[in-house]
Amino acid sequence: MTENLDKQFMQRAIALALRGKGYVSPNPLVGAVIVRDEEIIGSGYHARYGDDHAEVVALDNASESVRGATLYCNLEPCCHTDKQTPPCAQRLIAEGISRVVIASLDPNPKVDGRGVEMLKAAGIEVETGLMHDYNLVINQNYFHFVKTGKPRVVLKIAQSVDGRISRSMDGQTWLTGRESVRLAHEWRSEFDAVLVGAGTINSDDPLLNVREFDGRDPGKVILSGNLNLNSSCKIFANAADSKTDVLVLTSDKTDAAKRESLSAKNIKVIPVQETQPGRLACTDILDTLAKANINSVLVEGGSQIFSHFVQEDAFDEIRLFISPIILGKGIAGIDAPDITQKRLHLVSEEVIGNDILLIYHP
Amino acid sequence: MTENLDKQFMQRAIALALRGKGYVSPNPLVGAVIVRDEEIIGSGYHARYGDDHAEVVALDNASESVRGATLYCNLEPCCHTDKQTPPCAQRLIAEGISRVVIASLDPNPKVDGRGVEMLKAAGIEVETGLMHDYNLVINQNYFHFVKTGKPRVVLKIAQSVDGRISRSMDGQTWLTGRESVRLAHEWRSEFDAVLVGAGTINSDDPLLNVREFDGRDPGKVILSGNLNLNSSCKIFANAADSKTDVLVLTSDKTDAAKRESLSAKNIKVIPVQETQPGRLACTDILDTLAKANINSVLVEGGSQIFSHFVQEDAFDEIRLFISPIILGKGIAGIDAPDITQKRLHLVSEEVIGNDILLIYHP
Repeated sequence: MTENLDKQFMQRAIALALRGKGYVSPNPLVGAVIVRDEEIIGSGYHARYGDDHAEVVALDNASESVRGATLYCNLEPCCHTDKQTPPCAQRLIAEGISRVVIASLDPNPKVDGRGVEMLKAAGIEVETGLMHDYNLVINQNYFHFVKTGKPRVVLKIAQSVDGRISRSMDGQTWLTGRESVRLAHEWRSEFDAVLVGAGTINSDDPLLNVREFDGRDPGKVILSGNLNLNSSCKIFANAADSKTDVLVLTSDKTDAAKRESLSAKNIKVIPVQETQPGRLACTDILDTLAKANINSVLVEGGSQIFSHFVQEDAFDEIRLFISPIILGKGIAGIDAPDITQKRLHLVSEEVIGNDILLIYHP
Repeated sequence: MTENLDKQFMQRAIALALRGKGYVSPNPLVGAVIVRDEEIIGSGYHARYGDDHAEVVALDNASESVRGATLYCNLEPCCHTDKQTPPCAQRLIAEGISRVVIASLDPNPKVDGRGVEMLKAAGIEVETGLMHDYNLVINQNYFHFVKTGKPRVVLKIAQSVDGRISRSMDGQTWLTGRESVRLAHEWRSEFDAVLVGAGTINSDDPLLNVREFDGRDPGKVILSGNLNLNSSCKIFANAADSKTDVLVLTSDKTDAAKRESLSAKNIKVIPVQETQPGRLACTDILDTLAKANINSVLVEGGSQIFSHFVQEDAFDEIRLFISPIILGKGIAGIDAPDITQKRLHLVSEEVIGNDILLIYHP
């Protein structure tokens, strides 16, 4: 089969993988197609966290026997046997697939090349690397977590032309347009959690769920050094009925009665080390999130929180919306007077409605 | 001749016009080509303020008689006789040009359609409007001045990701990369003047000339409410030898001795009305510049100056460089607490080296 056809089928697998967007995290986006004589005879994708893997869906959906066919999949099939169902690699062997084309090896230590070894040992022809770079982008949160053991941290900052996120400390200033808001909701569905500070909870009373996009809600993480939280805020009132976790990370020195009153509302209160009184250590925050199965976190503010993550170099990406407004006064998104200046890399720029979105990496 | 060929020749005329970039202001960029039987037999452009008009250059350069030929020109030929040389329209008639294709009428009240009338009265076929929109863009400073009687004001702001132009009030913070600096020098050559505040002069000691681009130097305008200027700054030391004017705009209440000491250095000190003590009225600043034959002004800072022009709605464009740096602290480019928020329009975005350039209109 020509290289060009291989690429077409891998593109199809990736297009299917993307259908899982907003539903599969902390798992990766995975799609698979099964091809014989240049015709697709089965296809599938990982649709939702906990559901079947893409390869299994494709095999189950095949319109005929897959014996002798080729499977295209953007991630290495799994080989670990610590689940109730047999690993994908074993199933591919059993069904008689003769060739497997993979975009990326799965860096998960339980797989990491052993899926490929298992297939090769059974006499299956395996090719790896086709569209690997693209797969790294669509699954960047997954790859980051598996490689570092820490959640990928993305700061989402919306500011005015004059670099301000709000005209005053209390009360939200609405800056970005509808298209940007919709995109930010799409992002929420792709991250395991959204993180904000106590100030944002108390002043904006946000829901932090996904409304303008079809996807699952993220977990909610609130940082509060001293637990001065307004308990009548919606996020606490709704916690008992929430399908996703509400976590409050606080100092281990905070008042036990305050903690218990939150715990009684189905909120997980988790103590975190301080770097100074009331200031939680980012390294411990990220370790705590990793333990809570949160592999990616979208940090939505406010200024103190952005500043804290920048100050401690605890971010992997900044998504900066600039709205076509001059506020004239107000607070900057990042206020970290102790840093010497930090150089970033502009990764992409895109016009979103009337705003512009700039993406930076450290 | 087909419409398509007309467009090709007008594109050629505009390409020639652009060769005058950086040398012709306050005149417009104008190019002309003379065509017979689909072949260019003469071409030219206005090369430098004070030099011949494009049409004259094209006629003088023609390789054969232009009788019966077509002239393409991005601006209406002039018709006013208050110069030593005859107007272009008369010369075109005398040489027997039979058709003239123009992008835009010249809004200059001395012309404004009368050039076309003069040509038509002589039996020349005239077409107007081809690539008019494009001509409006390349000659936006000229069109603005002729229509409003005020110089076009462009604020050039370079700021960090966190919206700051500098880490402290005194001393320059170098933010943008070499490519952006080069582009900013190109702009200087296209504007009649660069304008800065006294603070920028005293702290940065800038030359405000064109170094990184091949073009003529702009005039220099310094706003200083109280004339607290460090007279040892380069811009004053060089004023006696400067080919372009150095203007200091100040309150009419400032000390006469201070004014005279500057005037003695070949600096034009011009009194301007105040809105409050030490604060010069933007309307009077712009009227003063117009009287000084400054039809366009590039405002380069600092924060107080940007803020002042924004506060008084005295700007026509903002060119915002965002450099991939987090400063962490420092001053915002615009600090205008008295305005309610102002909405702008994002006109274009472009990556320049490692920076991004955003252009906004009110």
